[in-house]
Amino acid sequence: MQRITSAVAGALLAFLASADEGLWTFDNPPLAAIAARRGVTLDRPWLDRARLATVRLEGGCTGSFISGDGMVLTNHHCAEDCIAENSTADRDLLAGGFLASGREQELRCQGAALSVLVDMEEVTDRVTAATAGVPAAQLVDARRRELTRLEQACEEAAAKAAGGPLKCERVALYQGGQFWLYKYRRYDDVRLVFAPERDIAGFGGDPDNFQFPRWCLDASILRAWQNGQPVSTPGHLRVNWDGVQPGDPVFVTGHPGNTDRLLTVAQLETQRQYFLPFWLLRYAELRGRLIQYAKTGAEPKRTTEPVLNSVENSIKVRRKQFDALLDPELLASAGQSEAGLRARVAADPALASTASAWDDIAAAQQVWRTILVPYTFLEDRAGFNNTLFAHARRLVRAAAERRLPNESRLADYTDARLPALEQDLRAATPVYPELEILRLSFALERMREWLGPDHELVRQVFGAESPDALAERLTRGSRLADPAVRVALYDGGQAAIDASDDPMIRLAVAVDPASRALRKRYEQEVEGPVRRGQEAIARARFSALGTSVYPDATFTLRLSYGAMRGWNELGEEVRPWTELSRAFERATGQEPFRIPERWLAARERLAPATRANFITDNDVVGGNSGSPMLNAHGELVGLVFDGNIHSIAGSYWFDERMNRTVAVHPAFLRAALEQVYGGAALLAEIDAGQANGRLQNSHPDGAVTGK
Amino acid sequence: MQRITSAVAGALLAFLASADEGLWTFDNPPLAAIAARRGVTLDRPWLDRARLATVRLEGGCTGSFISGDGMVLTNHHCAEDCIAENSTADRDLLAGGFLASGREQELRCQGAALSVLVDMEEVTDRVTAATAGVPAAQLVDARRRELTRLEQACEEAAAKAAGGPLKCERVALYQGGQFWLYKYRRYDDVRLVFAPERDIAGFGGDPDNFQFPRWCLDASILRAWQNGQPVSTPGHLRVNWDGVQPGDPVFVTGHPGNTDRLLTVAQLETQRQYFLPFWLLRYAELRGRLIQYAKTGAEPKRTTEPVLNSVENSIKVRRKQFDALLDPELLASAGQSEAGLRARVAADPALASTASAWDDIAAAQQVWRTILVPYTFLEDRAGFNNTLFAHARRLVRAAAERRLPNESRLADYTDARLPALEQDLRAATPVYPELEILRLSFALERMREWLGPDHELVRQVFGAESPDALAERLTRGSRLADPAVRVALYDGGQAAIDASDDPMIRLAVAVDPASRALRKRYEQEVEGPVRRGQEAIARARFSALGTSVYPDATFTLRLSYGAMRGWNELGEEVRPWTELSRAFERATGQEPFRIPERWLAARERLAPATRANFITDNDVVGGNSGSPMLNAHGELVGLVFDGNIHSIAGSYWFDERMNRTVAVHPAFLRAALEQVYGGAALLAEIDAGQANGRLQNSHPDGAVTGK
Repeated sequence: MQRITSAVAGALLAFLASADEGLWTFDNPPLAAIAARRGVTLDRPWLDRARLATVRLEGGCTGSFISGDGMVLTNHHCAEDCIAENSTADRDLLAGGFLASGREQELRCQGAALSVLVDMEEVTDRVTAATAGVPAAQLVDARRRELTRLEQACEEAAAKAAGGPLKCERVALYQGGQFWLYKYRRYDDVRLVFAPERDIAGFGGDPDNFQFPRWCLDASILRAWQNGQPVSTPGHLRVNWDGVQPGDPVFVTGHPGNTDRLLTVAQLETQRQYFLPFWLLRYAELRGRLIQYAKTGAEPKRTTEPVLNSVENSIKVRRKQFDALLDPELLASAGQSEAGLRARVAADPALASTASAWDDIAAAQQVWRTILVPYTFLEDRAGFNNTLFAHARRLVRAAAERRLPNESRLADYTDARLPALEQDLRAATPVYPELEILRLSFALERMREWLGPDHELVRQVFGAESPDALAERLTRGSRLADPAVRVALYDGGQAAIDASDDPMIRLAVAVDPASRALRKRYEQEVEGPVRRGQEAIARARFSALGTSVYPDATFTLRLSYGAMRGWNELGEEVRPWTELSRAFERATGQEPFRIPERWLAARERLAPATRANFITDNDVVGGNSGSPMLNAHGELVGLVFDGNIHSIAGSYWFDERMNRTVAVHPAFLRAALEQVYGGAALLAEIDAGQANGRLQNSHPDGAVTGK
Repeated sequence: MQRITSAVAGALLAFLASADEGLWTFDNPPLAAIAARRGVTLDRPWLDRARLATVRLEGGCTGSFISGDGMVLTNHHCAEDCIAENSTADRDLLAGGFLASGREQELRCQGAALSVLVDMEEVTDRVTAATAGVPAAQLVDARRRELTRLEQACEEAAAKAAGGPLKCERVALYQGGQFWLYKYRRYDDVRLVFAPERDIAGFGGDPDNFQFPRWCLDASILRAWQNGQPVSTPGHLRVNWDGVQPGDPVFVTGHPGNTDRLLTVAQLETQRQYFLPFWLLRYAELRGRLIQYAKTGAEPKRTTEPVLNSVENSIKVRRKQFDALLDPELLASAGQSEAGLRARVAADPALASTASAWDDIAAAQQVWRTILVPYTFLEDRAGFNNTLFAHARRLVRAAAERRLPNESRLADYTDARLPALEQDLRAATPVYPELEILRLSFALERMREWLGPDHELVRQVFGAESPDALAERLTRGSRLADPAVRVALYDGGQAAIDASDDPMIRLAVAVDPASRALRKRYEQEVEGPVRRGQEAIARARFSALGTSVYPDATFTLRLSYGAMRGWNELGEEVRPWTELSRAFERATGQEPFRIPERWLAARERLAPATRANFITDNDVVGGNSGSPMLNAHGELVGLVFDGNIHSIAGSYWFDERMNRTVAVHPAFLRAALEQVYGGAALLAEIDAGQANGRLQNSHPDGAVTGK
């Protein structure tokens, strides 16, 4: 907090270069700052190896290749959906864990896909040229069209390229100051190799989430397959089981999902005054409903758990984000920082056209605040929040959008995106009707509360039914839980949708006009003016600071640097690692402080001082879960799974004094595989990758120690 | 909002006199303003009649005598606890309604008591003298001792007075600028005479709560008994079944519970940044748990309903309070207003000692913010929030406090307060174990989350148990649901507490030292300095404004004036009344939009244009529920049951343009009794009171129309 306040006092440039802060893109790594601060000179081979060994899990996480046969290390919580979808009432893999007895026994994660970033191409000039002079109200549409054209051309070119087809994805950096095409190798056959029990993976549960000290084996192992074979990944990372020591430099590569560090004050105020309280009130209640439902039996408990974990994690994040924004000093600091940039703009005739950008964005916020509630319930589906409606919405829109030329479609329905959508429709993931009804009834009831019982759409959706009765009828009557039904509707296009009497399809059709109208209004009156303003601010920022600033996170590949390091919490120094023995001492035998039987049985064989978790001062946010933590030699020395409680304010600003990344120590994983789970074969496969030795050439001067 | 902003621009005095604002005490009614604004000259007989006919329901509501035999009109929601405690699985009076077939069939409300304010005595000088020069840290204790002495002497004097014993209660007005003893006639035998079905009393349920238009028969009739006889109440109100017309002046007498209009900005910021988000997150989750539990069966639904109604009502209030405080303009206005008073103080040498008051209060807020969470969980019982623990806490404290001299006790345990406590202990109100477990498990789980699993008290309370297991063991093992057990523990004093193995008693004993320590710290470091500061600010305000300001609400008798009047909602004029026919049209047959069978059967007999609910611009807040609304002649012309959504911000400021009071029209009640419920005998009793005619002498000039 202090750091931002002092930075505002004029030295904006100095501030930006002073900390181990930043989610840096691979085209612009801060090599000089890393060398100066950490005594490590990263070079192109180091960066390329790290980039090609880091994978994006399309569900919202990161992982890394750790063997030559496509083995991927990530978090347990990143594989939770896969583990749950492969579980049944009789065989609960979340509770009992899983270790494949051989490659053929690995379990398919039907909804999962992995992506590796193989190339990046900047297209800022082409997008800028295509949208120059377009009025703000048409900007979103014009950009979308141009980016769809670029993606399409890119995929067509990549299809003929050596090494097989690539996925091309539009990326907007610096709030639209830069546009890129990121090119990925995509793997959509992902299988579960190993997962420990939830009780050790998430030891401490929600109470400990975002806390440190911790003792979580939040790890799982997946494998990428292709054409019925494990994928060959010779460029994988070498695991250094010894990890790092306090002060050692560490690097995190991964796909942080979203930050709001470059938002204007007006946008932050929207978050504080409208978005966050609205979101938190709803999710706190949903949490209560899920917890109470889970108490009604073993199967409700099992099926609710992944949803509840996700809800509770999100609540903690949003709550701490809200705390950050409720602090008047922090928002005042952001205001001073913004005033500083505005003063620079005002003083520079070349930036005259930028001067109104902040006010334009603020004016658009006024519109946004009036439609945020209905937009959230309709277009964002908060009023129909269950799996079956999500399928229905996508089927209804896919039918309509596919009749349009590719460039005229909504972004989620372009030719480049349809394969991912089709994978989702085909995935035979279980749907639990009771849970669907709970979520839908809740969503409907809150929509009626917030929009009011006399709102036209509420009356249309509800008729004379109660939320419970409506949710029950829609869910029990729908056949969309069956992938074959979904695929038939998809393949049948608009005619199939028109002919369908599935009640969830009919609901999605009924609300689509109102929902699309809100989306259009949002794009024309909110998103367009905001993006136009942000584009101008980005130009001003580049003009003042060049690219010594990093862009907000966008679920694209980033590099973060730092060192293993504790922090001072209310006068107490927090030691930057934990040891396994303390987990046993702290266990109560009751969830979420329960150690699995297998671990209790193995306790005598385990070295008490085995390091369990550790912390570093790297800058990470959600989406970095599962990220490899690398040492100066490019070896994997940790598995990122969380941040401390102060890291959550990292959505808005990075406080180097307090913000810490929490990782699983490799020794914990090794002990688990060796002493608890009988995972010798996995360890052998991992250690067979010794050929991927230290990248000695990265450090010609040998100066690779921390400072 | 505008009004407050413009008032800030200097004309503080003018602002305070300009609106139909205010919750005025009966010693200082704004007679001149009422005459000027409303053309009505109220006199002492009018005020005395209104005061003596208005009753406080000790559960947190207001009512009024409407017959000579102690019949009390109040809201259905104010009698909900009584209706619920007299219901069983086989005879659900909330669902089915109730009409006593004769006086002997009226149902006792075991936890209820009524109070009538018969006298007021100012004791500011004595309290000020007794606490002059006392350091802030000892102020709370010194004041408490003096006020207990005064209460005790007052009750002793009143015991010998004609007309029987009175209850004497300390009242602090103007944040401690004035101290009073309010003297009440108390009736603790209250019985249920009539209640409609919940479906018509609360038509529209939570979605419609705090909304208008409305169609709620939120009315019930109680009766005060004494010595086995209905109480004789010759001074009761006459009911004018015709009600009032738009523009007619109306007066509300009642016991508004709490407002925060005189808080400093630092105190408002504590509400915004700490108290309200913390409260809302917890209660939103509790709402979810209660809703989900209620779905598990008819009996869970029946027993959960009163708790859920209360939780949902509170959530709506807190949410709109939070909205008000999140609006940066409103808080900025409060800041400017405060700056205005500070400037006056700075300019007046006589007020020099006041200058630091705001900073002292702000400094105390810093302490308060650090202990607010543990204080709430321990001393405010948010960590042990169920009925059985509440009994245990009171029994444990009563035993300890009664061993002390009266003046040294906590205020709730002085001799003057013990009769109310004893009534609660004796009341055989049902306790539902499943609901007790739900509430306690929730409270424990959130306490563990917010204090952290490694907090000393959390470890002490939980041991190795889960929240569910602990709640189950404590609730199933406790015998405190039995009034006889409670009375025995109370009568047995400290020895009985020491000997008790009741697990809830043992828990209350175990947490008491930590809880009392927090209370002591709060009183010494927060409450004392805040009260000292407020006392000084009150002096400054009196010096500047005299008593042209009204004090914040304190659940004591107040007068509010206004007129029947709509408002402009987003460009649309809201008509200030509703008609019965629309309720039938709007009904869906599903909760909460279901019209009871009895009403559907009576539909043909009911005049469609019968006025159902109406609104006025009176200033009311929670606690005014059940208040009589009077015309210039002192006749009852409405039954206050709610405010519109804008009224909730009335906790902090009154916006005359938007803030409206919602009332049941007398014609709706008459139609119900006459056409639906067969309540001819009740109507006859009410109409027998014609002797209480119009107070013609109040209006010597005859000018009693609205303007």
